[in-house]
Amino acid sequence: MDVLKVQASAKTYPVYVEENLRHHVSRFLPSEYTAILIITDEHVSNCYLEDVKQGLSDHRVYTHIIPAGEKAKSIDIFYEIHTKAITCGLDRQSLIIALGGGVVGDAAGFAAATFMRGVGFIQMPTTILAHDSSVGGKVAINHEQGKNLIGSFYPPDAVIYDIQTLHTLSKQEVRSGYAELVKEALLADANFFQELMSQRLSSLTNRQLAEHLTKGIRIKSTIVEQDERESSVRKFLNLGHTLGHALEAMLGYGKWTHGELVGIGLLFAMRVSEKEYATVLPFEKLYTWLKDNGYPLKLPVLDPHDILAKMKLDKKAFNAAVQMVLLKDAGQPEMAEVSDAELLDFLESFLEELAQDYH
Amino acid sequence: MDVLKVQASAKTYPVYVEENLRHHVSRFLPSEYTAILIITDEHVSNCYLEDVKQGLSDHRVYTHIIPAGEKAKSIDIFYEIHTKAITCGLDRQSLIIALGGGVVGDAAGFAAATFMRGVGFIQMPTTILAHDSSVGGKVAINHEQGKNLIGSFYPPDAVIYDIQTLHTLSKQEVRSGYAELVKEALLADANFFQELMSQRLSSLTNRQLAEHLTKGIRIKSTIVEQDERESSVRKFLNLGHTLGHALEAMLGYGKWTHGELVGIGLLFAMRVSEKEYATVLPFEKLYTWLKDNGYPLKLPVLDPHDILAKMKLDKKAFNAAVQMVLLKDAGQPEMAEVSDAELLDFLESFLEELAQDYH
Repeated sequence: MDVLKVQASAKTYPVYVEENLRHHVSRFLPSEYTAILIITDEHVSNCYLEDVKQGLSDHRVYTHIIPAGEKAKSIDIFYEIHTKAITCGLDRQSLIIALGGGVVGDAAGFAAATFMRGVGFIQMPTTILAHDSSVGGKVAINHEQGKNLIGSFYPPDAVIYDIQTLHTLSKQEVRSGYAELVKEALLADANFFQELMSQRLSSLTNRQLAEHLTKGIRIKSTIVEQDERESSVRKFLNLGHTLGHALEAMLGYGKWTHGELVGIGLLFAMRVSEKEYATVLPFEKLYTWLKDNGYPLKLPVLDPHDILAKMKLDKKAFNAAVQMVLLKDAGQPEMAEVSDAELLDFLESFLEELAQDYH
Repeated sequence: MDVLKVQASAKTYPVYVEENLRHHVSRFLPSEYTAILIITDEHVSNCYLEDVKQGLSDHRVYTHIIPAGEKAKSIDIFYEIHTKAITCGLDRQSLIIALGGGVVGDAAGFAAATFMRGVGFIQMPTTILAHDSSVGGKVAINHEQGKNLIGSFYPPDAVIYDIQTLHTLSKQEVRSGYAELVKEALLADANFFQELMSQRLSSLTNRQLAEHLTKGIRIKSTIVEQDERESSVRKFLNLGHTLGHALEAMLGYGKWTHGELVGIGLLFAMRVSEKEYATVLPFEKLYTWLKDNGYPLKLPVLDPHDILAKMKLDKKAFNAAVQMVLLKDAGQPEMAEVSDAELLDFLESFLEELAQDYH
């Protein structure tokens, strides 16, 4: 098995990507731990919790199940995880494992970051989308007034990615995860982008899945290693997210998946880039691939002014104008400030284009 | 003015100790900040908040007042600080200032550590006790089931210590702070210990106060620089706290001050050390100084078994036996595991000795 190493400022941690790892977690623990608390959600627990527990039978293991979905990233669930950790007698040498998708990783990770000022933490992602959030050390919960506003940078001790757990994902979840892989490819590897564009998601093999995840994680970790705290190049990872997040907030979390809206956001970022840099990007190729693979591309009728207002609420904006990640070419991202007037124009023509479904 | 520098793993930060600094905070800001949120409590705000705000009149400044006392370190107040930060439009380049004692520093510091995964943070201690907590980067709130269980290591950008704000402290608060200075002296500087023992707290000059604080902070920061995460020498800072914390939990927070109970804890640590190492320590000197300076030394009747049970709840213990900091001599601390049976013996004879008031 190829083992990726990610270098965070505080430590270097391994990322294991392979089949069947969930049965043998003990083998991959990087330290001795006095006790282990597995946090998972109500869906994942039914499928994989017993396997993971059996693979840790030589340890003192506790489990805590949180609700599935974004609502688990609340301050109440956060406090509840702490209560559980105390009740189980966890100490500073203990470990919290996040078994699940991005929500579980974020909530359990922020609890691990703050319980007794930080205990051991291992990510076991069970979605494709979580390849992104499980690497890079960002953990957070939501405030009623915004996503991920309360959190830390807290790199895990290890990421253990059993790709067999991805077989129970719905088609929608596969699409959601692949949009982030496409984003990573567009940021750093034009060949990888071409490879993805020739892949039908319905016929993925385990080997292809492992390869794509490994490539995506490598791109992400290379960027994060250069800029853990997101003061420069890490911002590139927001490619497609300026519009994606705004749409997510407007259309309601859960109806469309994060990645599906990022897919639309990537198209928008391409169109803006083409106009700003007077260049041509593989917009049609991506559009066709998204459509062929079942990504929903028909948005309800939205007012560009409302979208703009949501974009400006994005926490990454620190002054009036919206900062967007654009592409000079595939593999050549750049930060750009786009004025409100321009953005309204771009949004209007983009929404029209999508509505026409010009293919 | 002497400027101390403290080297944390993530950054090096200055500690300013001087009169009247609160009027000129702008001069000591280490970076540009987009906005400033001052967190203070209902008592401190009456005395010093206006001064600090005036000294920052060239910035966009907001203020938020939390309750005085330990109850402010709750999850609800923590969330409330986040709400305030969002409402004021703070972003990642903003600053949170903690103006107050240890409680304000801990609560505001943990909010700063977690708001948008970490914003600027400056400690402005207004108690002598807070010389200890404001340096070293530990921030936390309480869980219903224990103190400081939810927190981070988050070094400040600077510590700005206006010793003039210490003049409004009650005698009890002065005693509380000086117990930690005595502890630091005992850990690392026998001359400083002698100096303190010849000092009457009622006749402190500003110059003496500044000198003592500077010496205490230097000892603390030297220890913290060697072991930020408390895996080795930082544990020495718990000298006197094994019994001190247990008594605090039993006698109720607020009736006795933290430092007053640490004073008793230091006496106890000396007696245990004398027996364990068959040595003689300046127990009588410290006892007399504490008594002469008005430290309450008469405890209510307590069962040693109850005290032992509380000691074992201390979060620093990670196995059955209690870990205590002992002294081979003034300036020579050592960690030791003390068995339950021994501790019960020591506690019994110590409580008897205190009750007799053998002077």
